[in-house]
Amino acid sequence: VSHGGEAPSLTDLAARIAGIVGLQHVLDGTRQAAYATDAGESRGLRAAPDLVVRPGSADEVAATMAACHERGVAVVPRGGGTGLVGGSLAFGGGVVIDVGRLNRVLEVNPAAWRMTVGAGLTTTHLQRIARENGLYFPPDPGAAENSQIGGNVATDAGGPHAFKYGTTGSWVTGLEMVIPPGRVVAIGGANRKDVTGYDLVSLMVGSEGTLGIITECTVRLIPAPRARAAMTAVFPTSEAGCEALLAVVGSGLVPSAIDFLDRGSLAAAHGGFPAGLDEDAGFMLIVEVDGDEAEVDASVPVLEEVLGSATQCDRFRTVRDQRELWRWRDTVTGAVRALRGGKLSADVSVPAEHFQDALAASAAVAGEHGLDFCAWGHAGDANLHSTFVFDPGAEGALARAATAADHLLVRISAMGGSIAAEHGVGWAKSGRLSLQLGEEALRLHRGVKELFDPDGLLNPGKKS
Amino acid sequence: VSHGGEAPSLTDLAARIAGIVGLQHVLDGTRQAAYATDAGESRGLRAAPDLVVRPGSADEVAATMAACHERGVAVVPRGGGTGLVGGSLAFGGGVVIDVGRLNRVLEVNPAAWRMTVGAGLTTTHLQRIARENGLYFPPDPGAAENSQIGGNVATDAGGPHAFKYGTTGSWVTGLEMVIPPGRVVAIGGANRKDVTGYDLVSLMVGSEGTLGIITECTVRLIPAPRARAAMTAVFPTSEAGCEALLAVVGSGLVPSAIDFLDRGSLAAAHGGFPAGLDEDAGFMLIVEVDGDEAEVDASVPVLEEVLGSATQCDRFRTVRDQRELWRWRDTVTGAVRALRGGKLSADVSVPAEHFQDALAASAAVAGEHGLDFCAWGHAGDANLHSTFVFDPGAEGALARAATAADHLLVRISAMGGSIAAEHGVGWAKSGRLSLQLGEEALRLHRGVKELFDPDGLLNPGKKS
Repeated sequence: VSHGGEAPSLTDLAARIAGIVGLQHVLDGTRQAAYATDAGESRGLRAAPDLVVRPGSADEVAATMAACHERGVAVVPRGGGTGLVGGSLAFGGGVVIDVGRLNRVLEVNPAAWRMTVGAGLTTTHLQRIARENGLYFPPDPGAAENSQIGGNVATDAGGPHAFKYGTTGSWVTGLEMVIPPGRVVAIGGANRKDVTGYDLVSLMVGSEGTLGIITECTVRLIPAPRARAAMTAVFPTSEAGCEALLAVVGSGLVPSAIDFLDRGSLAAAHGGFPAGLDEDAGFMLIVEVDGDEAEVDASVPVLEEVLGSATQCDRFRTVRDQRELWRWRDTVTGAVRALRGGKLSADVSVPAEHFQDALAASAAVAGEHGLDFCAWGHAGDANLHSTFVFDPGAEGALARAATAADHLLVRISAMGGSIAAEHGVGWAKSGRLSLQLGEEALRLHRGVKELFDPDGLLNPGKKS
Repeated sequence: VSHGGEAPSLTDLAARIAGIVGLQHVLDGTRQAAYATDAGESRGLRAAPDLVVRPGSADEVAATMAACHERGVAVVPRGGGTGLVGGSLAFGGGVVIDVGRLNRVLEVNPAAWRMTVGAGLTTTHLQRIARENGLYFPPDPGAAENSQIGGNVATDAGGPHAFKYGTTGSWVTGLEMVIPPGRVVAIGGANRKDVTGYDLVSLMVGSEGTLGIITECTVRLIPAPRARAAMTAVFPTSEAGCEALLAVVGSGLVPSAIDFLDRGSLAAAHGGFPAGLDEDAGFMLIVEVDGDEAEVDASVPVLEEVLGSATQCDRFRTVRDQRELWRWRDTVTGAVRALRGGKLSADVSVPAEHFQDALAASAAVAGEHGLDFCAWGHAGDANLHSTFVFDPGAEGALARAATAADHLLVRISAMGGSIAAEHGVGWAKSGRLSLQLGEEALRLHRGVKELFDPDGLLNPGKKS
């Protein structure tokens, strides 16, 4: 629809949609610019949408979708735009539906450990409301200030605390969504146990906007842990770090997070480390425990013992110290990008026993393609952000990084790993599902898509 | 296929299947008798299968299913036969596939907190292997010594500890299954994070054998909590008990279990209560906390305070005491049945704030139908086993109880509750999904069934 002769029908569609959402919520050229990219811009993902719409209700989302469907125009849902795999970009054109205005807090029920919010509410905002009620919403993907709960659900976003608490999907009991050709559907609800129908809520979780557009989420909460302690431990080599990781996992504790940074990531980010860090640190584990005060007090000496082989060990006992630590952790992506100007990360996971193999395979692939490499991520979940670093001005560098990342997916799937752990498939990894999914699983996957979106007009080309 | 003229084709099928699984694994008349009922016999559910087969591998399950499909014969999967809703009975005839021989322990990886086992392994056996490795598999549905992990996954079985740890599905990362017309499919795997495809594992969880036959399960484990403490608190009325429940939930603790028994259940079961109990106790809460020793020690005084209004409070601090307590809790179903000889339970859940309303509605419905009533279950999850008690010899009593249970489902769904919380829909509640699911959700539900089982030959009539 974005090309030449079809422009009149687009104008007609824009007018129709303006009639639904109000003219001021249909974005024109300049205001559309930000929608051509997401946080995966450095991997070269870019696609200008034909139209960007910001509906104010689920009914408006449905009517907008219906108007597009009548005209055979693709619809691409978008949350905070913090995705890394082009999942919210309109490759091939189409209408982007930005759900950011659906950001109302619809119900907070502290006594039932539960809240219902619009899909456009930011993750940070949701977390704050929980906290203000003495409760806790554990999922903490990166970019929480911009990312939105609807997008978190649609991508099953993870983060460090998924190790103890699971990914976003573990906390969702009910959804309102709009499915093709433009119907509002409620699935699940506020019950903590419910096996009445097939688990459509989990099917929507991680579906990346290809089955429906999430407009409202009911999430579980838990009482906020009263205490936390974090510890970082630095090791000379990744081998030594991986041995310590095994010791942590075998300690009998269930840490709330076990993250890692390898030598290359530390080289990029060491300057900002709150406790000071040598430039040549080989591997770092970040281990956090939470619970009540007594539990945390009892856990710290256990951690100190199992991390005893570290060359540097720092403790983060106050809330303020921990905030500084995790803020530093959040800067890693940017610091790595700043090294050479370009980076391309492959977000993968493997069965725990292959964690070190996956690290080694990542480095080997980088070497084979003449690329600098580093990795960080969630060691407890054996979830690596294997990253190829390059100068975006160098000829063919980005293409070489893309090829390397793809080769890595082949090796990861050969280990029984996942080629998309917590950042989604999006556009970046589409076409590669067969590396991991068998023929029959892929047939069922496609059948699910066909069931929800028979015309293939919802976020086409993604997660496929 | 079970009727008159078609007998020859069944004989032919039996011969074909004997060729697949071995003659000794095709059960004849006498050995088939147990398969005509499940643990829901007291609600009058009974259906004799045409044939019972006990395959020894996933390939044999697939070949058996294929042989049935070629002949248009229905297939009904069965685990431990501990279900309460007729989910494994062959209404309308067909071949029951008993997966009990698929009980191998395929991998135990304590360092990765994981194991892979055949679907026929009993829940107790799985729990014991975890425990022997210092680990813990939290789901604990009733009848654990007979129930099997495949059936637990297929029904998303719950139990008391689901309050803190979630139902069975929360612990499953990978499945092997056989889908119509007879194909072995692996979905998910051993990764702790994986968003590569749509979440087919969760779709199978709770699908009650209507989408595929689970043959193998990979489950997550966690380090075993080092300490536990349980407490029971008796209140004069359910109102007082519900107030105490709110206090427990608002205490900041996350108990590992919060169960309840009402006056009628206590009247039936009080004789066996380990600490002794007055006959006229009105309501009991069972609250358990777990964690490390320090945490549990710190939690007990908090519990004692919030349960302070109880007229009787008993502490269960040793492993042996706790085992006795939960064993007693397991006897409730039988004790209630023994009251009059017959009982019919509606397993429902509601949003937490409606727990007391749901109790009241259950009692009111019983009154309207002239039935005795009691309830127990998982108060923390607002999951009630609302039970109508009757003399099975009294004319029309069972039918009256069935009508009452159905009326209760109507009231529960009006509260936004679930008409099937943890015992499944099975045969007993089939036809009632529309009470809870909207038209579009029901259309998607049916579409999922059609995708997996287009010929409708897998566990027909269940969960529909």
